Amino acid sequence: RPVREVLFFPSRPSCTEAVLVEAAAEPGAAARPCPCPLPQGDCPLSRLLRRLLSARRSLEICLFAFSCPQLSRAVQLLHRRGVCVRIVTDAQYMGIRGSQIGLLRHAGIQVRHDQEDGYMHHKFAIVDRRMLITGSLNWTTQAIQNNRENVLVMEDAEYVKLFLDEFERIWEEYNPI
Amino acid sequence: RPVREVLFFPSRPSCTEAVLVEAAAEPGAAARPCPCPLPQGDCPLSRLLRRLLSARRSLEICLFAFSCPQLSRAVQLLHRRGVCVRIVTDAQYMGIRGSQIGLLRHAGIQVRHDQEDGYMHHKFAIVDRRMLITGSLNWTTQAIQNNRENVLVMEDAEYVKLFLDEFERIWEEYNPI
Ligand SMILES: [Zn+2]
Ligand SMILES: [Zn+2]
Repeated sequence: RPVREVLFFPSRPSCTEAVLVEAAAEPGAAARPCPCPLPQGDCPLSRLLRRLLSARRSLEICLFAFSCPQLSRAVQLLHRRGVCVRIVTDAQYMGIRGSQIGLLRHAGIQVRHDQEDGYMHHKFAIVDRRMLITGSLNWTTQAIQNNRENVLVMEDAEYVKLFLDEFERIWEEYNPI
Repeated sequence: RPVREVLFFPSRPSCTEAVLVEAAAEPGAAARPCPCPLPQGDCPLSRLLRRLLSARRSLEICLFAFSCPQLSRAVQLLHRRGVCVRIVTDAQYMGIRGSQIGLLRHAGIQVRHDQEDGYMHHKFAIVDRRMLITGSLNWTTQAIQNNRENVLVMEDAEYVKLFLDEFERIWEEYNPI
């Protein structure tokens, strides 16, 4: 049965170490519980992380603002695992304090940004050309923990295709060459 | 066949008078073409207007920023036509120059806003408890004409219910009494 879900935020501050360590599959890692005092267990952020970490082949990300460290770790982990990750982002936001874009680029991930007056205001991702993740949420800790936000998760070929086409259009337009 | 569509923005500056006048159904109005020099015809904004103007009974709006005059006219027109309109918005944005919220409230439309530190960052609407309109787009002329944005339009009972429940939760929480 195809995934059809909506994640509503804010998500209370939670420890997502277990999700990230499990995905990294470091031998013996599961034996060391995280020492931080945050509550563990299911929350909108951990569910979003799990959806992203299900990627096996490709991940397109089209995001106005990306500063959340846990989501950045997940994306780096996928890149190291051989998933083809491509990121499109907004130039104005990219340079601000806390943005993860520089770090992701430094890790070898392909990033392109707009050269336009308007904002690249999308907030979507596509996993394995199969699952669309889209909504109001920028990937920032501020938004995740404090804002009212929604994220739709849909395994829906029709919507995936429309957003993938939009991604490819933008990807080509933002080609710096 | 249920509506399933995605509107991608920016939308070039276009004349939407015909859509609004047609919806107002003022006798003889169709005989006076708008004298403005903007191009007419289909565009993402006119399609969004038509979807909203299809409301016959109820319209829930949950929106961070609302300053677009055409969308405001559509909402006022629906209110005058007897559609039950309820708006939830963000307190920080509400007061800024160009916001339509004061005008809509003055027209007799019910508006509630947050009292929170975080942003009420949703951008969705529900037409006749049947159609969900949601995405990255704030209802501002700046975003409509300049930004890369997406709006999903779905006649999908499952997603409508999830967003309607979220709306009712917020509506109750923001009750000033
Ligand atoms: Zn922890
Ligand atoms: Zn005109």
